[in-house]
Amino acid sequence: MRGEISLENYKENRNVSNEYVPNHGNEYACWLQYNKIKESAWMEEYKTWCSNLVVVENSEVINSAKAELLRGISSMLGFNPSVLMEPQQKTLIMLGTIGKTDLLDNRINKQEFEHLNPDGYVIKTVTVGEHNRLLLIGKTEKGALYAAFHLLRLMQTRKHLHNLDIIQNPKNPLRMINQWDNMDGSIERGYAGKSIFYENNKITTRLDRIKDYARLLSSVGINAIAINNVNVHQVETKLTTSEFLPDVAKIADIFRAYGIRTFLSINYASPIQIGNLPTADPLEPKVREWWRERVEEIYRYIPDFGGFLVKADSEHRPGPFTYNRNHADGANVIAEALNPFGGLVIWRCFVYNCLQDWRDRSTDRAKAAYDHFKPLDGKFLDNVILQIKNGPMDFQVREPVSPLFGAMENTNQMLEFQITQEYTGQQRHLCYLVPQWKEVLDFDTFAKGEESTVKRIVDGSLFQYSNCGITAVSNIGNDTNWTGHTLAQANLYGYGRLTWDPDLSSEEITDEWVRQTFGHDPLVVEQIGKMLMDSWRIYENYTSPLGIGWMVNPGHHYGPNVDGYEYSVWGTYHYADCHGIGVNRTVKDGTGYTGQYFPPNAQIYESLESCPDELLLFFHHVPYTHRLKSGKTVIQHIYDTHFDGVEQAEGLKQRWTSLKGKIDDARYDSVLKRLNEQIEHAREWRDVINTYFYRKSGIPDEQNRTIY
Amino acid sequence: MRGEISLENYKENRNVSNEYVPNHGNEYACWLQYNKIKESAWMEEYKTWCSNLVVVENSEVINSAKAELLRGISSMLGFNPSVLMEPQQKTLIMLGTIGKTDLLDNRINKQEFEHLNPDGYVIKTVTVGEHNRLLLIGKTEKGALYAAFHLLRLMQTRKHLHNLDIIQNPKNPLRMINQWDNMDGSIERGYAGKSIFYENNKITTRLDRIKDYARLLSSVGINAIAINNVNVHQVETKLTTSEFLPDVAKIADIFRAYGIRTFLSINYASPIQIGNLPTADPLEPKVREWWRERVEEIYRYIPDFGGFLVKADSEHRPGPFTYNRNHADGANVIAEALNPFGGLVIWRCFVYNCLQDWRDRSTDRAKAAYDHFKPLDGKFLDNVILQIKNGPMDFQVREPVSPLFGAMENTNQMLEFQITQEYTGQQRHLCYLVPQWKEVLDFDTFAKGEESTVKRIVDGSLFQYSNCGITAVSNIGNDTNWTGHTLAQANLYGYGRLTWDPDLSSEEITDEWVRQTFGHDPLVVEQIGKMLMDSWRIYENYTSPLGIGWMVNPGHHYGPNVDGYEYSVWGTYHYADCHGIGVNRTVKDGTGYTGQYFPPNAQIYESLESCPDELLLFFHHVPYTHRLKSGKTVIQHIYDTHFDGVEQAEGLKQRWTSLKGKIDDARYDSVLKRLNEQIEHAREWRDVINTYFYRKSGIPDEQNRTIY
Repeated sequence: MRGEISLENYKENRNVSNEYVPNHGNEYACWLQYNKIKESAWMEEYKTWCSNLVVVENSEVINSAKAELLRGISSMLGFNPSVLMEPQQKTLIMLGTIGKTDLLDNRINKQEFEHLNPDGYVIKTVTVGEHNRLLLIGKTEKGALYAAFHLLRLMQTRKHLHNLDIIQNPKNPLRMINQWDNMDGSIERGYAGKSIFYENNKITTRLDRIKDYARLLSSVGINAIAINNVNVHQVETKLTTSEFLPDVAKIADIFRAYGIRTFLSINYASPIQIGNLPTADPLEPKVREWWRERVEEIYRYIPDFGGFLVKADSEHRPGPFTYNRNHADGANVIAEALNPFGGLVIWRCFVYNCLQDWRDRSTDRAKAAYDHFKPLDGKFLDNVILQIKNGPMDFQVREPVSPLFGAMENTNQMLEFQITQEYTGQQRHLCYLVPQWKEVLDFDTFAKGEESTVKRIVDGSLFQYSNCGITAVSNIGNDTNWTGHTLAQANLYGYGRLTWDPDLSSEEITDEWVRQTFGHDPLVVEQIGKMLMDSWRIYENYTSPLGIGWMVNPGHHYGPNVDGYEYSVWGTYHYADCHGIGVNRTVKDGTGYTGQYFPPNAQIYESLESCPDELLLFFHHVPYTHRLKSGKTVIQHIYDTHFDGVEQAEGLKQRWTSLKGKIDDARYDSVLKRLNEQIEHAREWRDVINTYFYRKSGIPDEQNRTIY
Repeated sequence: MRGEISLENYKENRNVSNEYVPNHGNEYACWLQYNKIKESAWMEEYKTWCSNLVVVENSEVINSAKAELLRGISSMLGFNPSVLMEPQQKTLIMLGTIGKTDLLDNRINKQEFEHLNPDGYVIKTVTVGEHNRLLLIGKTEKGALYAAFHLLRLMQTRKHLHNLDIIQNPKNPLRMINQWDNMDGSIERGYAGKSIFYENNKITTRLDRIKDYARLLSSVGINAIAINNVNVHQVETKLTTSEFLPDVAKIADIFRAYGIRTFLSINYASPIQIGNLPTADPLEPKVREWWRERVEEIYRYIPDFGGFLVKADSEHRPGPFTYNRNHADGANVIAEALNPFGGLVIWRCFVYNCLQDWRDRSTDRAKAAYDHFKPLDGKFLDNVILQIKNGPMDFQVREPVSPLFGAMENTNQMLEFQITQEYTGQQRHLCYLVPQWKEVLDFDTFAKGEESTVKRIVDGSLFQYSNCGITAVSNIGNDTNWTGHTLAQANLYGYGRLTWDPDLSSEEITDEWVRQTFGHDPLVVEQIGKMLMDSWRIYENYTSPLGIGWMVNPGHHYGPNVDGYEYSVWGTYHYADCHGIGVNRTVKDGTGYTGQYFPPNAQIYESLESCPDELLLFFHHVPYTHRLKSGKTVIQHIYDTHFDGVEQAEGLKQRWTSLKGKIDDARYDSVLKRLNEQIEHAREWRDVINTYFYRKSGIPDEQNRTIY
């Protein structure tokens, strides 16, 4: 008998590749469609403003902004604006930065910029006499670039331009993307083709695609990117050496023109592997010296290099534990080397025992990050940031927020999301994650009393962090549509917008994205909006219930497998038996995990009465007959949500097919294909999960639906 | 989170490679140790006989026999015998074939050879006057070669030579080995390193190792080998073309000198893939012509080419079903092409729906081979043989015998075993399979009344098959000791011996093997013998219970995973719920599988009362509280066997360590290492299986042992 079914099928299905063909149109353009405007009123209004563009400054980033404006305007309006050095025309757009020329400074109150971060900007329409000026003024040139993208967004979403008075200031200093790309061209947890950065262990020469990626990222405010997988293998270790730095510099050049700093993920054992030292002990002077030299060389190639992203002592990656050093020792030696250049060390907190004995119920993986890092609060240098996954486990469809947020007042923290849908349908299922991320960002840790939300921690305002922000694992590859599932483009878009402003509502973001991506037909806007907004809950419904997570096939993590990780070393268990299910993480008689939260969260989770239904099994082991707040028993909730989830998945398809004719065929068909697959696989989830729990509990469905 | 634990650990452990270093000594020599004889009495006796060797004939195979005798004798006795053309000395060995020269013919009654198969032989000590002759006379030169190996076995097992009167006749015409080697050097289901036949998509140039393999095989009577995997991938498809045939011919040359015919596994779609035909439809004249031409070319390179082994319409391999033809159509077109040259088509019956819906309880994979092939009885050409796995599923630790044996009176059948331990511990666990194979061979099908045993079916005696025999998947690779686990050499040895004579007892075979491999210390012979003889039952005890099978990790099939295949497409389910477990395969209210057996087997399996305990769950779904014939409940049996199994595995180690000092360090240490691993993994099996069923049934262990 050959292979493993689920994996084999899985790979087979993945073979349906979709690789990039340049200028492939709508799929490729994502939300930067810039489609010709057909409504004459809008056309007239925009034409008035956009016929003339004044740009006095000349810099890489300003040029990117100018180019994007020209591209967008000419595409939407059908003519090329005149680019002028002086504002002679009656109505025109002026692009630039504050404090550079009187031309702009004279037209605006400079005080408006005082409280802006470097990336902030002002968009304003001012009328002086007969002259109408639409000002796009950045605090720096990056701000000007963001302002240009903002204007194009306004036009794509059909907003009036005559009375604009916008001040925008990004909430988060770092708005980052992590590529989990390997140099062999594969992408760890990538579901949209191969890497756009690498092939055959070399850096790609197809830089046009990287430039388009930079445009997409910059358009939503991303300002940093780590361009290789956090699991740094042998070849990738050499990205920090002169063998690859000239090519890394080419990539950094592209991103720099779009206001994005380039980072590299590094191998903690680099001093051994490429430095030929006998050790990577961070307290060893030769190791310190080695890092210093390495960093110096990198900055010779890339003067604004961002720094390093480090996965150390995690899932068999090397780290300071090997030398009996802690993570502060480990991070600081590298931070010291980077400090003179303004570089950062972004140090991941995803550290846990991945060789756990499933028999051992006292060890709790959920506790690991807090246990490892909390005692080190204040020990890290200022240019170190701890990167913390949103939940304590690993990007499940539902997890509580990591208790490490807010627990380290004196240590820079940033939040890590996963845009790529590793556990949320792998871009074969629609699962719009913005609502999930909003919940995380809005979660109140009570670290400093009320309003100690996660977003205020990671934007630095709660504890005045010097470096902080949000990062996420990218969901793009070289598929024509970047993200495999065309609707998964919304996750990349929404992520970027949230890093800029976590207070944006899911609905606002969704509406923006749909209009830019699919246009303004009311039915399209309504139906796709509903599809997106409902999709996370739908996916949750037919997959693992009540916050317990996992229940996926090991390795590739696609498809249902209730016991997939139950007898494994990974610390991810559900403890289902014929009586009940769940992990007792209480202080009273469980693993004590709830004690890692600040009150009142600690009490809310500790108590079976107050623990929210959707996280019940994460915190408590209960009988199948336990009544939820909804009034249903746990077992009936499992049955109901799984039957509902499939019907809802079928509903997604109905909504989509109602749009036939209103969406170009290529995108219509490709999304329809994925929705059909989603329905089929949702049924598999439903039947496996329901059958598993029916067989285990012996409790029949109250509605007598088919369970096997 | 990265990868899959079980698979990753699995691979890691496999990395402990052991690759072949020429002349590496005892591990490499297997049962052809030919160690120096230290007992002076034996030395004297053997010296008398072995000082002179008369060989008149001169042929490849006779030369192999002569060379082996010289090698064995010189190694065991410390001198090189004189090789003579005439029997002048008083006492000597004479080697040759009957009917070739008066020299031998005059010394023996030729009638003794009349009833011998071509591979038979006579070994006889005759005394005429002062002259003592030890005659090794084959019916053909192959017989002479087997006689030579027999003599060496007698000496290695310390048998007297002065009164020999042995007539040996192999029971099975075909005594075959299947290599599941791929040309990239990997071996499907190989657990002893890489292929000795291929590397980097080429045929190896290290032919010395292949010659040693031929010696090992020939020494136990193997006379046929298919040298590539039944799953024939792209490169391997070209083995039948002039690109590779010169190199295939070199391998065939080596095997020919040891009486072994070479076969190739073929891709049924070859006419398309290498013939550039639009179809592989067996009834298409161009396809027929293509096969004819292909076969002709092969025979130009290899005049005694054995034929083709075919896996068609099985697990996604191409076959006649594509063209709405049946398997007789499919096989016959190739058989026709081979017929003029005496070539065979060996056609595997491992055909089943491998995209089954787990929800569907009416389809039964166990029924598939019978359902597919039984209706075709008599439709196959005479040079086609159906190759049937011993059980209806796939080489599980315990299965019933396939009901196809005996069900096709007019169709040649042969039996397929699996020496490589895919489901029986992968040569990391000790699992001596000879007792299992004996059970299969001795199984009475009642196809033609009593004594219609499997062995009499496949040896051709029951239905006078024209071509038939036994084959098995090899367990060797390029590890120094060939088989990974040194004690797994016994499986290869025992397999060969059983193909020659299925009536040999497990005890005889075991004793032979231990003495030849480890010498004659009584403790060594006793303890290793017991280890081997107990090991199958021990492995069964701590793995899947009562004939249900599977419960392994999907894909690589190592380690426990009760639900591993439960919700898969492979048709391998246990249907455990909180009340009971097992597959109802009765005619009365199950899948009807029991009806495929002849009476009384059909009735025995049909009835819960008469069904043997060890196959109970294969045939019946019963509550955990069902009482076995042993008096235990099913659940208590599961607990007890699993606790026992681990203790017994620990007992294997105790036996082995009692032999320290009596076995060379290299073999002692390597076996000890594996026994330690076996214990560790047996505990994992015990705890996972017991925990699974305890959690599912809620029934505690009567003895209150630890279950998690």
